[in-house]
Amino acid sequence: MPSKVNVGIIGAGRIGKLHAEHLAHRIPQARVLAVSDIVLNAAQQCAATCNIPTATQDHRVIMDNPDIEAVVICSSTDTHAHLIEEAAAAGKHIFCEKPIDFDLARIDRALTAVDTAGVKLQIGFNRRFDPNFKRVHDMIQEGRIGEPQLLHIISRDPSPPPIAYVKVSGGMFLDMTIHDFDMARYLTGCEVQSIYAAGGVKVDPAIGEAGDIDTAIITLHFDNGVLGTIDNSRQAVYGYDQRVEVFGSGGSVRADNVYPNTAVVSNAQTVYRDLPLNFFMERYIDSYIAEMVTFIECVQRDQSPPVIGIDGRVPVVMGKAAQKSYQEGRPVALCEIEKK
Amino acid sequence: MPSKVNVGIIGAGRIGKLHAEHLAHRIPQARVLAVSDIVLNAAQQCAATCNIPTATQDHRVIMDNPDIEAVVICSSTDTHAHLIEEAAAAGKHIFCEKPIDFDLARIDRALTAVDTAGVKLQIGFNRRFDPNFKRVHDMIQEGRIGEPQLLHIISRDPSPPPIAYVKVSGGMFLDMTIHDFDMARYLTGCEVQSIYAAGGVKVDPAIGEAGDIDTAIITLHFDNGVLGTIDNSRQAVYGYDQRVEVFGSGGSVRADNVYPNTAVVSNAQTVYRDLPLNFFMERYIDSYIAEMVTFIECVQRDQSPPVIGIDGRVPVVMGKAAQKSYQEGRPVALCEIEKK
Amino acid sequence: MPSKVNVGIIGAGRIGKLHAEHLAHRIPQARVLAVSDIVLNAAQQCAATCNIPTATQDHRVIMDNPDIEAVVICSSTDTHAHLIEEAAAAGKHIFCEKPIDFDLARIDRALTAVDTAGVKLQIGFNRRFDPNFKRVHDMIQEGRIGEPQLLHIISRDPSPPPIAYVKVSGGMFLDMTIHDFDMARYLTGCEVQSIYAAGGVKVDPAIGEAGDIDTAIITLHFDNGVLGTIDNSRQAVYGYDQRVEVFGSGGSVRADNVYPNTAVVSNAQTVYRDLPLNFFMERYIDSYIAEMVTFIECVQRDQSPPVIGIDGRVPVVMGKAAQKSYQEGRPVALCEIEKK
Amino acid sequence: MPSKVNVGIIGAGRIGKLHAEHLAHRIPQARVLAVSDIVLNAAQQCAATCNIPTATQDHRVIMDNPDIEAVVICSSTDTHAHLIEEAAAAGKHIFCEKPIDFDLARIDRALTAVDTAGVKLQIGFNRRFDPNFKRVHDMIQEGRIGEPQLLHIISRDPSPPPIAYVKVSGGMFLDMTIHDFDMARYLTGCEVQSIYAAGGVKVDPAIGEAGDIDTAIITLHFDNGVLGTIDNSRQAVYGYDQRVEVFGSGGSVRADNVYPNTAVVSNAQTVYRDLPLNFFMERYIDSYIAEMVTFIECVQRDQSPPVIGIDGRVPVVMGKAAQKSYQEGRPVALCEIEKK
Repeated sequence: MPSKVNVGIIGAGRIGKLHAEHLAHRIPQARVLAVSDIVLNAAQQCAATCNIPTATQDHRVIMDNPDIEAVVICSSTDTHAHLIEEAAAAGKHIFCEKPIDFDLARIDRALTAVDTAGVKLQIGFNRRFDPNFKRVHDMIQEGRIGEPQLLHIISRDPSPPPIAYVKVSGGMFLDMTIHDFDMARYLTGCEVQSIYAAGGVKVDPAIGEAGDIDTAIITLHFDNGVLGTIDNSRQAVYGYDQRVEVFGSGGSVRADNVYPNTAVVSNAQTVYRDLPLNFFMERYIDSYIAEMVTFIECVQRDQSPPVIGIDGRVPVVMGKAAQKSYQEGRPVALCEIEKK
Repeated sequence: MPSKVNVGIIGAGRIGKLHAEHLAHRIPQARVLAVSDIVLNAAQQCAATCNIPTATQDHRVIMDNPDIEAVVICSSTDTHAHLIEEAAAAGKHIFCEKPIDFDLARIDRALTAVDTAGVKLQIGFNRRFDPNFKRVHDMIQEGRIGEPQLLHIISRDPSPPPIAYVKVSGGMFLDMTIHDFDMARYLTGCEVQSIYAAGGVKVDPAIGEAGDIDTAIITLHFDNGVLGTIDNSRQAVYGYDQRVEVFGSGGSVRADNVYPNTAVVSNAQTVYRDLPLNFFMERYIDSYIAEMVTFIECVQRDQSPPVIGIDGRVPVVMGKAAQKSYQEGRPVALCEIEKK
Repeated sequence: MPSKVNVGIIGAGRIGKLHAEHLAHRIPQARVLAVSDIVLNAAQQCAATCNIPTATQDHRVIMDNPDIEAVVICSSTDTHAHLIEEAAAAGKHIFCEKPIDFDLARIDRALTAVDTAGVKLQIGFNRRFDPNFKRVHDMIQEGRIGEPQLLHIISRDPSPPPIAYVKVSGGMFLDMTIHDFDMARYLTGCEVQSIYAAGGVKVDPAIGEAGDIDTAIITLHFDNGVLGTIDNSRQAVYGYDQRVEVFGSGGSVRADNVYPNTAVVSNAQTVYRDLPLNFFMERYIDSYIAEMVTFIECVQRDQSPPVIGIDGRVPVVMGKAAQKSYQEGRPVALCEIEKK
Repeated sequence: MPSKVNVGIIGAGRIGKLHAEHLAHRIPQARVLAVSDIVLNAAQQCAATCNIPTATQDHRVIMDNPDIEAVVICSSTDTHAHLIEEAAAAGKHIFCEKPIDFDLARIDRALTAVDTAGVKLQIGFNRRFDPNFKRVHDMIQEGRIGEPQLLHIISRDPSPPPIAYVKVSGGMFLDMTIHDFDMARYLTGCEVQSIYAAGGVKVDPAIGEAGDIDTAIITLHFDNGVLGTIDNSRQAVYGYDQRVEVFGSGGSVRADNVYPNTAVVSNAQTVYRDLPLNFFMERYIDSYIAEMVTFIECVQRDQSPPVIGIDGRVPVVMGKAAQKSYQEGRPVALCEIEKK
């Protein structure tokens, strides 16, 4: 049995606490030695809940600790690229929440640092580890639907984020659709060549006033001729709507929403059931555990993680292409973005 | 009780025979007096099966029969526009299979003739009468999903038509998608402003050699800001795939495929059921009866049919816009087609 | 192609009219020559709707017509056994609605008459021809679930019949469960040895006052060791509840209710759909057509019908065993009933 | 916030380890101070995995530790009753796996000891805490189906236990059906008056040779007139089959099996999905956590647990009634068992 992996967590916000709890209680192969947060109190509370010996305001304490082999970066997006570089320089393996950054040059600098240092980097596209989507992916890989031809992703949030968040989010395509861009690449195993994005403001005029949209349909042209769509809304009143469907020469496979229970009532009016799981932490809890288990095991066994730096970079390019397509009302090739 | 409607059927091919059988055996409000087909034998066989007193090679026999109040036009597409004009001139109400024609000027001439004559014209968009799609439509009308925002239509055939047919079909957008264009207008109750069509040849290279495509994803921008997609394939190996979903501010509604039975088997490998209804005549049989009942009742009661001339014209414009969009790789406004 | 079968219909009530319409409009292999009803007007109306040349008050007109090869007996239950004997004596093939009679001696006399005359007799257990239950049956025959071991039938009506009918119905076990007894034999292909019936009055006290029950659970012990239950209620507020499940050594198969459409709505409260088909004529319409097609074809081709005299007799024995079991609070062997 | 509850675990077999892991990692309100097992190594391994300070062969170490407020009894069934008495004498709250014992006199002694000591006792009927069955229960309580009238429980294991286990299991009714007896009482909120059990050996003749059965259908007569069935098999080849349905005056509610994912494939043969969750630890994992959280919280808040001593006793009476009914081929009233 390989020895435990010593981990430091940077950022003790919502997602940092989630990873801390999983690492502490659900992943026996890991040992969390320290947690940092610019709000000291947040780090301390997380440490108390998860029996983490060190809580600090200064992430350098983690970077400088020679016992720590791996860092989990959960701080705000604008710090990701720089922290990746720091961690690479310190020779630590890296799990980083998405997105790496919105600036391609900064992303490239970070990925170069990772390559140079020879450390592992896993990007936090947790949905790849969702048992439903993973099963769809695996069934496609097993050839159960022949050659993929058409792809559909439905990805709707239960309710929009606060306007303050919308303003700094990078825009819906980079904040929300980025997960779906990753899913599109994951399911088809192929790169996108060009994107056509149609969208608008349907949910809240304040989102439009903040310069963003809240509803979109995005058409994807893949290198191998596969065509796909992504359907996004910031507000589905019935909860979190997360479905995929891939159609191929030999059949199709789809994954439906996940429900809190299987109870179905028939009464004199209708046949009904409870709403699907509403919140991303409920819906994707298994995927968060699975992605972290995978990261820890890759470190233990010296294997390459399944979601690497390039997987963090491409969806940002796609997000920029979608933005440009929406603004200019025409399909945009990804290479147009690269040229900039 | 109003008196029976005397009907003449022009064209005794597959769809003509279907309508003849329904009118003869399932629609007591109608009486079929004559059937014509350029192949006399086809007309005679149809007459024998359906107890129709007159079988003829010459449709003028029908047009000239003063007892016949309504004609059902099931001949080849290139005859539709002209037969509509003839029937209108003869003062007969008209049920005409889709499409009216591929030429907008000819369509407009036919519709003008109908208007001038003051006769009724119903276009054979039977899917509006499918109990599943009709229920979706009605639920939207009842306000159950609030304001519609997003629409998806999946429409895949079990297998492609013969290449000989493909060559004269007018192209997939005008031959196959035309039904989906009508469905989009029916479900949203709104007109489309512009169309972006992505497509390719996935099913059979011979279709490409014939100058057509067999797979497409079409994005629709509606006047009121609704966005939609249509997913088309000429071949779904599991059968006829016909689904819709409309998402709105207050919820969503979707209709699934129809299965021949509800039997579900669980064995040591999987949980499975039989494939959905495979052939359009099985899948849409109820809709064919319902549309014809509606037409006959509209004649009896002197009411306007629910699918009129303009409903036959607009999908042709949409098909041409989709073709142009696919050829030019850009979204095309419907007004661009009108200008031509 | 064999010649058409000339048919006479005895009884033009609800079920008689249904068969008349199917024979007239949906079954081209049959020709209805006459319809009789003790209420002449009923026979005349039926004849008008279905283009039947002769309408009469006297069923002897049918029995005496040498052109008529087959009779369809839809008159009241107390006339069935006698009419079977008359038709057999007249050398006519017989389709008879269930039950043959409630008296085993009278049933046996009728079946002996049929045997002696060498005519065909099909009993109207239409549910065997329902596409859902038939598919379950066929899948079991194909060995898809291995050896059957356990059976469950849920059979609940939307609402109880009028009390006047309850009083002459023969009791729930002979009036309603009789269909389920037949289904049990059909699905397992095996005879029942003993029955334990538990029941009560849950729906309407007036049913109890009339000496009947409205709710029951019946346990079946089959000859081959299979065990089964039947769940009956006279009132399911959500509509007609008709499901079966068979469990075997290699898996299980079940058939669910049938719905008028596939539309599913998700709103802020629940995910819901319309109620299942509510009325037996809607739910079982296909089965009524299929059973009559089968009867006509058996006459045409001189084949034995799939539901013969013994299939009409055994469920009556089972109903009597269930009654006795309920009254005495103990399991009752079918041979106890035979002895009487 | 109330202080943590100090717990001792007796028995470190499969179920003991499961509870230990939940208490250690998933239930922050508890602190496990010691674990005992007659196999010292088992206790030590469990302690190592779950960070439990004390591992011992002698459960008296736990009973004598004044810091331990609550014990979790997971040892073999024959020790349960005695350990309950010991724990009660030591003033400790008790969570005890089912069944308490097979001997009613011993059960009564244990329950008296609990009453005398005034400690809390919760019985390990975990399925009450399954989110699916709990939702069914709650919906019934909320009045969504009116007055319950009919109940069905399907409870089939993926595969039979080893014959060695069968021989000491107490028989299928007391080993397996006991869970379903509890479920029947839980869902209806009512006591059973009499039981009729039909059964046989279908899965493995060796089970019959060991004096047990492996397949049964049990009819339940409740005090309030509700009727129910339990369907048991020791082997469903498609996995763990655990469903319930309750029918009432205002509707019905049912809970289906739970699947590992929602992926559905349509190919040229069928529409299929993966098998349901196969093993009780996967299927019921949430229920094991929920029942233990509930127990710990009841101790913390000084509340009565929801599954108390009588809930452990009644199903044993029911199991004995089912055995007697099966042996004697007649319905057996529960009061017959009490008299013995």
